[in-house]
Amino acid sequence: MSNWAGVTTLEIDTPALCLDADALEHNIERMAAFFQQRPAALRPHCKTHKCPTIAWMQLRAGAIGITCAKLGEAEVMAQAGIRDILIANQIVGPKIPRLIGLAAYSDVMVAVDDIANAQDLSAAACAAGATLRVLMEVDAGMDRCGVPPGEPSLALARQLVALPGLRFEGIMGYEGHAVMIPDPAERRAATEKAMGILVGVRDLLQDAGLPVGIVSAGGTGTYDVTGAYPGVTEVQAGSYATMDARYDTVGVGFERALTVVARVISAPREDMVVIDAGLKTMTTEFGLPTLVHPEGWALQSLSEEHGKLRREGGKPLRPGDVVTLVPSHGCTAINLHDAYVVTRDDRVIGEWPIAARGCVR
Amino acid sequence: MSNWAGVTTLEIDTPALCLDADALEHNIERMAAFFQQRPAALRPHCKTHKCPTIAWMQLRAGAIGITCAKLGEAEVMAQAGIRDILIANQIVGPKIPRLIGLAAYSDVMVAVDDIANAQDLSAAACAAGATLRVLMEVDAGMDRCGVPPGEPSLALARQLVALPGLRFEGIMGYEGHAVMIPDPAERRAATEKAMGILVGVRDLLQDAGLPVGIVSAGGTGTYDVTGAYPGVTEVQAGSYATMDARYDTVGVGFERALTVVARVISAPREDMVVIDAGLKTMTTEFGLPTLVHPEGWALQSLSEEHGKLRREGGKPLRPGDVVTLVPSHGCTAINLHDAYVVTRDDRVIGEWPIAARGCVR
Repeated sequence: MSNWAGVTTLEIDTPALCLDADALEHNIERMAAFFQQRPAALRPHCKTHKCPTIAWMQLRAGAIGITCAKLGEAEVMAQAGIRDILIANQIVGPKIPRLIGLAAYSDVMVAVDDIANAQDLSAAACAAGATLRVLMEVDAGMDRCGVPPGEPSLALARQLVALPGLRFEGIMGYEGHAVMIPDPAERRAATEKAMGILVGVRDLLQDAGLPVGIVSAGGTGTYDVTGAYPGVTEVQAGSYATMDARYDTVGVGFERALTVVARVISAPREDMVVIDAGLKTMTTEFGLPTLVHPEGWALQSLSEEHGKLRREGGKPLRPGDVVTLVPSHGCTAINLHDAYVVTRDDRVIGEWPIAARGCVR
Repeated sequence: MSNWAGVTTLEIDTPALCLDADALEHNIERMAAFFQQRPAALRPHCKTHKCPTIAWMQLRAGAIGITCAKLGEAEVMAQAGIRDILIANQIVGPKIPRLIGLAAYSDVMVAVDDIANAQDLSAAACAAGATLRVLMEVDAGMDRCGVPPGEPSLALARQLVALPGLRFEGIMGYEGHAVMIPDPAERRAATEKAMGILVGVRDLLQDAGLPVGIVSAGGTGTYDVTGAYPGVTEVQAGSYATMDARYDTVGVGFERALTVVARVISAPREDMVVIDAGLKTMTTEFGLPTLVHPEGWALQSLSEEHGKLRREGGKPLRPGDVVTLVPSHGCTAINLHDAYVVTRDDRVIGEWPIAARGCVR
């Protein structure tokens, strides 16, 4: 990869995934400040940025540990020196020996919601003479993974506590059905309902004499509600560091740090030009990315290798002209790239490896 | 990455992008056979498979060269020893010196549709003492890149022929608006119309005394029409080697070589389970992937890290159970992965690097 340090974003090769260092630092500091005077702590999710550089910035700002979606991500982060890692999903099958291996060089914690899976983890941990930290995942209303609240949660927790080789640390739940609700009052209501379910399970377990040290939940859209909810001990927000166009619309108040810089490669008509960024540079499951520069043009469509821009009163564009877009979904767009081109005051200060990119296993 | 050679697909870690070697070889041979007795030749597009191993299989089966979408892909293929490479897009800005560099160790050819861009290429080639092969891209009805047919094509071609440092090799056009038309007769009609435009430009240029050695076009959905159209000299089909669910529906007769093997990680209800493959493993711009195993289950939705399966009469699934899906769009799904897990008779025979993955520049 080229050495672009010192050049402006107008000069870099395209398409490039760019990260504004000032906005990133602002976002990390703003989120850290929210948690500074609260009982709950921040355990930022690394599935969005996938970058140990950013994870360490979050830890230095006060985060108590990190969250990962995949074992492979957790391995990358542990190899970058990070110890306290929650894998917020279930680990099954051939991955279990790898997980036990990771537990030998980190304080990894994993989600469980099934007794047979927990028994597999217990057997593997015992065979290795290891202790594996587990959080029981509870379905707090999202209808995806997790044990139902109430009696099933209590029954599974009783079994988990008794399994050798596992240390039952507490519970987690994700209010993923609430994080993107546009209306703040509705979002708050849905989040409080989900946290009521989750903290209700904590109460049920504690009343039965079971230890619940950790109650983990939350995302960028709900951090302020979840992070202030009595009983929640940690919040897993991730997108706040980089942000994206979808979270811009939710109005969570973080700055836009992530952009894609692209170039016009063809200008067949005055009212339509084609750029060098398509579906292998940005994703569309949350809608089209947003064109933010130049004014008077809009992104009309993305195909595999191309984007078509439609003129809406802007000045004519020619091949070679630079345009800037904001990805609609940062998590999946970042996962397409090997490195961030990091800028400050519009000059490149370095390239940071997206070291956990593609770690789907 | 683990060494899985010899294990069955039931035993590999998941999610994994799998490639059936028999189906791949069948597809490569079937396409090669189509071109064996024809004036037109095959120049397979590598933007789909992004894998030098497969590109070399295609060349050994008779392909005259390869097509790439990006300069970075072409560099990977040239470094794997492939010489005759068409970059079927315009190269602008900071990439031009890299392109001239590539021309020093390959017979690279690039698309042009703009005189200012061609002048930039010419100046860079002359400064390096190099000769760069160019194809003029014509808009054959797709309304994306390319110079319009008729007088604008003739005028640009006259200028290109006169530019020092460039060798004008001919023309290209892509009937991308036709390749996915489900009805074969409609697809044929749209393709023949597009090829009529493209070959019409060839005639116009030849009548004016300009040399048009190459007329390049085509995709997997239209190879049989484009490849038999008088005047077309080469076809750029790519998806036929691996195939995907979308091209399955178009009915082009190639075998399904590409699958994603995933595992159930959570089974919260008898009628719904969650797998470990989401939007970072497969893409959805052409719709949801197709679940092909086990019977009696269907893919209901994909989120970032998860897929939800809905029971439709199948046997119950438990955490750890293996499922198989076919990506809806192979090109973008392959681009998420670092390697294919290659199988024959359902046993792993190796892992092939997707060496050009992420080469968006």
